Amino acid sequence: MASLLRCSLRSRPAARLPAARSFSGSLSRNAGAAPEHRYFPDEPQSPIVQTTVPGPKNKAAVAELSQVYDIQGLNLFTDYERSIGNYIADLDGNMFLDVYAQIASIPVGYNNPILRQAVSTPEMARALINRPAMGSFPSADWTNILKTGLLKAAPKGLNQVFTALAGSDANETAYKAAFMYRRQLERGGPHVEFSEEESMSAMLNQSPGSPYLSILSFKSAFHGRLFGTLSTTRSKPIHKLDIPAFDWPQAGFPSLKYPLEDHVKENAEEEQRSLQEVERIIKEFHNPVAAVIVEPIQSEGGDNHASPAFFQGLRAITKRNNVLFIVDEVQTGVGATGKFWAHEYWNLESPPDMVTFSKKAQTAGYYYGNNALRPNKPYRQFNTWMGDPARAILFRAILEEIERNGLVENTASTGDYLYKQLESLSKKYPLAIQNLRGKGRGTFIAWDSPNRDEILLKAKTAGVNLGGCGSHAVRLRPMLVFQKHHADLLLERLEKLF
Amino acid sequence: MASLLRCSLRSRPAARLPAARSFSGSLSRNAGAAPEHRYFPDEPQSPIVQTTVPGPKNKAAVAELSQVYDIQGLNLFTDYERSIGNYIADLDGNMFLDVYAQIASIPVGYNNPILRQAVSTPEMARALINRPAMGSFPSADWTNILKTGLLKAAPKGLNQVFTALAGSDANETAYKAAFMYRRQLERGGPHVEFSEEESMSAMLNQSPGSPYLSILSFKSAFHGRLFGTLSTTRSKPIHKLDIPAFDWPQAGFPSLKYPLEDHVKENAEEEQRSLQEVERIIKEFHNPVAAVIVEPIQSEGGDNHASPAFFQGLRAITKRNNVLFIVDEVQTGVGATGKFWAHEYWNLESPPDMVTFSKKAQTAGYYYGNNALRPNKPYRQFNTWMGDPARAILFRAILEEIERNGLVENTASTGDYLYKQLESLSKKYPLAIQNLRGKGRGTFIAWDSPNRDEILLKAKTAGVNLGGCGSHAVRLRPMLVFQKHHADLLLERLEKLF
Repeated sequence: MASLLRCSLRSRPAARLPAARSFSGSLSRNAGAAPEHRYFPDEPQSPIVQTTVPGPKNKAAVAELSQVYDIQGLNLFTDYERSIGNYIADLDGNMFLDVYAQIASIPVGYNNPILRQAVSTPEMARALINRPAMGSFPSADWTNILKTGLLKAAPKGLNQVFTALAGSDANETAYKAAFMYRRQLERGGPHVEFSEEESMSAMLNQSPGSPYLSILSFKSAFHGRLFGTLSTTRSKPIHKLDIPAFDWPQAGFPSLKYPLEDHVKENAEEEQRSLQEVERIIKEFHNPVAAVIVEPIQSEGGDNHASPAFFQGLRAITKRNNVLFIVDEVQTGVGATGKFWAHEYWNLESPPDMVTFSKKAQTAGYYYGNNALRPNKPYRQFNTWMGDPARAILFRAILEEIERNGLVENTASTGDYLYKQLESLSKKYPLAIQNLRGKGRGTFIAWDSPNRDEILLKAKTAGVNLGGCGSHAVRLRPMLVFQKHHADLLLERLEKLF
Repeated sequence: MASLLRCSLRSRPAARLPAARSFSGSLSRNAGAAPEHRYFPDEPQSPIVQTTVPGPKNKAAVAELSQVYDIQGLNLFTDYERSIGNYIADLDGNMFLDVYAQIASIPVGYNNPILRQAVSTPEMARALINRPAMGSFPSADWTNILKTGLLKAAPKGLNQVFTALAGSDANETAYKAAFMYRRQLERGGPHVEFSEEESMSAMLNQSPGSPYLSILSFKSAFHGRLFGTLSTTRSKPIHKLDIPAFDWPQAGFPSLKYPLEDHVKENAEEEQRSLQEVERIIKEFHNPVAAVIVEPIQSEGGDNHASPAFFQGLRAITKRNNVLFIVDEVQTGVGATGKFWAHEYWNLESPPDMVTFSKKAQTAGYYYGNNALRPNKPYRQFNTWMGDPARAILFRAILEEIERNGLVENTASTGDYLYKQLESLSKKYPLAIQNLRGKGRGTFIAWDSPNRDEILLKAKTAGVNLGGCGSHAVRLRPMLVFQKHHADLLLERLEKLF
């Protein structure tokens, strides 16, 4: 186990060091800067690339695995034993600075010793070897695990949780809750029994028992790949082709122009157009809309942002049309944007009806506050495992680690520093960094690059594991333990690439 | 940790003791029988019930949890620390003989010390704290974990696996594979590109990109509760009401008469009717059928059986109509029927196209053998986590434990013994045990009881945790470590109840 100096980043936040002194923009690292406290003291000082990428061992491993497992989406065969903190190790002895982090899902670094402690307890072993059917046989400690973990992190105004396994089924069960809620309203309340016609037609997949209701999502949205969620995902054809889909509507997501400060008026108009389209669809679409789902920042679809005013508008529209408002925080949640939940930036007057989560939480589900979102009878929102207590225990440890070390604040300040430096770089290399976005949103930063795929490949050779999204965006999705000295390493290597 | 005598059940199988000598049918236990080797020597000798059920601590715990979590489906608040082997402990000091086993999903007993060892390794800790996006960043040991675990258990003829999180998404991704396969055939092969029209219409959830294809399932089937799988689930209205569904077809599952030996001809005719309906639907249904999915024994829907001839017929029909044949072994798989996979009983000439699994496997996914079932491009069958290496490691340990101790054979022989005794009981109490079924299918046994719900409740008071299925069936779903002496305890208590 790595020795980890347990100093708090909160008490000595990395980004309090003056940002400008650190990245000189000319490849000299940290010239004159005071040394930063390192969260992972045993990390490499910088990336190590000693073979071509992929190296020979990687290639051999792929050849073997692909015999029995579809690995067409391979990025790197990974040595998780040697990976540490912000560094991901491959099979060929290379160590990459990882700003993709398992598609934005590693919260506090590889082989975090505190998490290792948390999974090496009798409590965790019990949870793993006695996996409960939680809706029927919850464990004695389940209430406590929720209260000291998932519910402690609950967004303001939402004090209940439905647990799931991943982002896809978290969203999908949220849709189910929305449909049941809507039909219950139409029926006249929770005490009105289903009609015989409803029960019989449901068994035939027909209306009224299987109603023609819909979920409204946005163009370029990504909410998952199961049949319900895929019907709301609008990111790329390759995600959707050949799969039957529900006849559900989409509205245009605002397409903002950058830099934002130079396009204030037209961006506001663009957001208004989108809001008007949402309300028109809600009023007119032939399959009535039970809920609107939106990502705070459309991630897979290209890191598309909108202003707090836009989301306040969405909340208002959904409220006045009696439609539920679901916020998909699967990728934005758990600190990545510099607040624990990205929708905190919106200062809503009333909270979303449901907030879904997964990825960095390492478990999944949705939060809600309204009791009426609980189905009126047992076994309506149900499945055998109903989530995973082992991962809920892990979430609790992650949350404690985040709080103890001020990692959300670290992400906010590191992000501010990184954004500022990228802004400078974008002026120097305006072709390589276009539409830089994510200002004031922690390290949740992206830009467009005409030769994006080439950049991602070359970044590996330079020792950086970068991710893409949309058609030509580079997205930064580092962990919450990404510090200013990591940002400097990244910036140097990016400048080399440009 | 319980001390577990590592004698092999294979070398001394419990059921080699003459069955008739053991359960006398008059509440005297094991009179004259040689003592059986006990897999869990530290289990209680018999159930312990010392409070009303639910007891006061259970009630208090429910009151607290239900503030923040929907627990309407509660059965027992469980003390997993005290649960052991075949015994489930509640919060009030009661220990029930558990023949429901977390809805058929505990394979080798509560707090199995061998599993505890398997989850207390550095390998497991690594898998838990460094959760990979496996489709892009598989771990160095992933190929080996598959080959020594999931693939070692692969059904005959199926040498590849897609890993998932639970039964629902295992089935749902199998459907996606079926749709992609079907459209690829129609398109003319894997090298034919998608048309512009397909790509554009898919983004609108419209045909041809989102095709009108269907999955054929059977009446009373249960395949999950996500939107695609719920459209194939036909168990009960309460599972389906208010949720939009695809316009997919269902065929009648054979409704066999018991005892089977008295109704050979009419049961064969009933199966033929069902097969004819399947073929007619495949030929005529307006949304073309891409795949047929079937459970070897319809479990949630009432433990409905059909003969090997019926399933051979299904395989033949699907083959000659170029439709895929998916076998859902989520509940029947991993030994519960006395073979590792229930479909082994069918002696098919060619294997199913896909076999899905979960529950006792503690992980999930689908097996396949045909390379063409792999999508032709990356990111078509994909999601962030793509299963869970931690649970795949656990599966490997479960598999080793099953093989080392001959637990499938134990389940076969214990099941034969239990069935025989239940058959005797059913003659003595013909009203209480109707349509006894599961002969020669291990401990996968059920019967109908007019006052089923009352029986389930009373069984608790008698120290047995029993499950139901269908409208009035009692289903036995014990673990693979259920031995003859447990069967005797169960039989005694059942007789008391009758």
